[in-house]
Amino acid sequence: MRLLEERIAKDGIVKAGGVLRVDSFLNHQMDVTLYEEMAKEFYRLYEGCGVNKILTIEASGIGIACLTAWAFGCPAVFAKKSRTSNLADDVYTARVKSFTHGGECDIMVSKDYLHPEDRVLIIDDFLANGEALAGLIKLVRDAGATVVGAGIAIEKAFQPGGERIRSSGVRVESLARIKSMSPEGGIEFC
Amino acid sequence: MRLLEERIAKDGIVKAGGVLRVDSFLNHQMDVTLYEEMAKEFYRLYEGCGVNKILTIEASGIGIACLTAWAFGCPAVFAKKSRTSNLADDVYTARVKSFTHGGECDIMVSKDYLHPEDRVLIIDDFLANGEALAGLIKLVRDAGATVVGAGIAIEKAFQPGGERIRSSGVRVESLARIKSMSPEGGIEFC
Repeated sequence: MRLLEERIAKDGIVKAGGVLRVDSFLNHQMDVTLYEEMAKEFYRLYEGCGVNKILTIEASGIGIACLTAWAFGCPAVFAKKSRTSNLADDVYTARVKSFTHGGECDIMVSKDYLHPEDRVLIIDDFLANGEALAGLIKLVRDAGATVVGAGIAIEKAFQPGGERIRSSGVRVESLARIKSMSPEGGIEFC
Repeated sequence: MRLLEERIAKDGIVKAGGVLRVDSFLNHQMDVTLYEEMAKEFYRLYEGCGVNKILTIEASGIGIACLTAWAFGCPAVFAKKSRTSNLADDVYTARVKSFTHGGECDIMVSKDYLHPEDRVLIIDDFLANGEALAGLIKLVRDAGATVVGAGIAIEKAFQPGGERIRSSGVRVESLARIKSMSPEGGIEFC
């Protein structure tokens, strides 16, 4: 998606260690006008696939997921990263490693909000090693629901997550795919 | 806001200890059609106040904040609850107690995204003791920016947060104000 690639090229900051900072428009400050265009693109890509639910993971996926849900006219659900006193006891869970934070965490969705008849589009801001996405796919499948596909804002195509998830048979659509990046050389898209 | 009150009455679950579960439509599964109506109501209430930025706190405020930002045509920013490797070093911080989780946490916003010329509308899903809202107000004021007001989905008016924040001179608009609630007696709105 040209609009997103241009924005990444303009405002993204490549840090050492494979970190791309896009928090001026994507995951701290949120440009909802851009989100709306991304949501429309996800709708264009997955229109006619019977999507009736959007699933994402807190926190930075939520905004994009909400605009996407709005485009599809369906609800969104976000997986939580820790058990809270407000969450139902009956949950689907998966353990995921975090690229950004290091370490592991459990993600969970209440069994009330994923059902066998659901056709789920998974939305997230980044795809790198694919740990979060694999965890979200597990939640959907544990519910007996269908993973229609994934809609990712930025895929680090030089990391193995996208290839791994696609080769498992899940459709993955990334709006910007980064082939390589470095603080010195900048960003090259696929 | 009648639509929200009716939804709370229909789908909200009152638990012991002053907990209201609304995760079927507000803060786990998200009814973005309802969010859109709430966003339009916040726009109606704060139209003409020069709002140029929406501020919220992760995670459950983000969806409502994004739709509200969309209604105002401005960006949204969410305060983070823990320092991540992706966040700039230069941050405004506040310490807040959590009603839901117990304990304290630090919330923070990068100094890049709050400026003295900003006129900020703070959005959150709940107002109870007002700790989170007070922390968000502090972040805005530390930046030298203006707090135009707060837009809250559900205010527990039987807890002291709303009164405390209003008496400090900040405009607070809550779309649903709960006068009392109990597992036996149900929910009474103000």
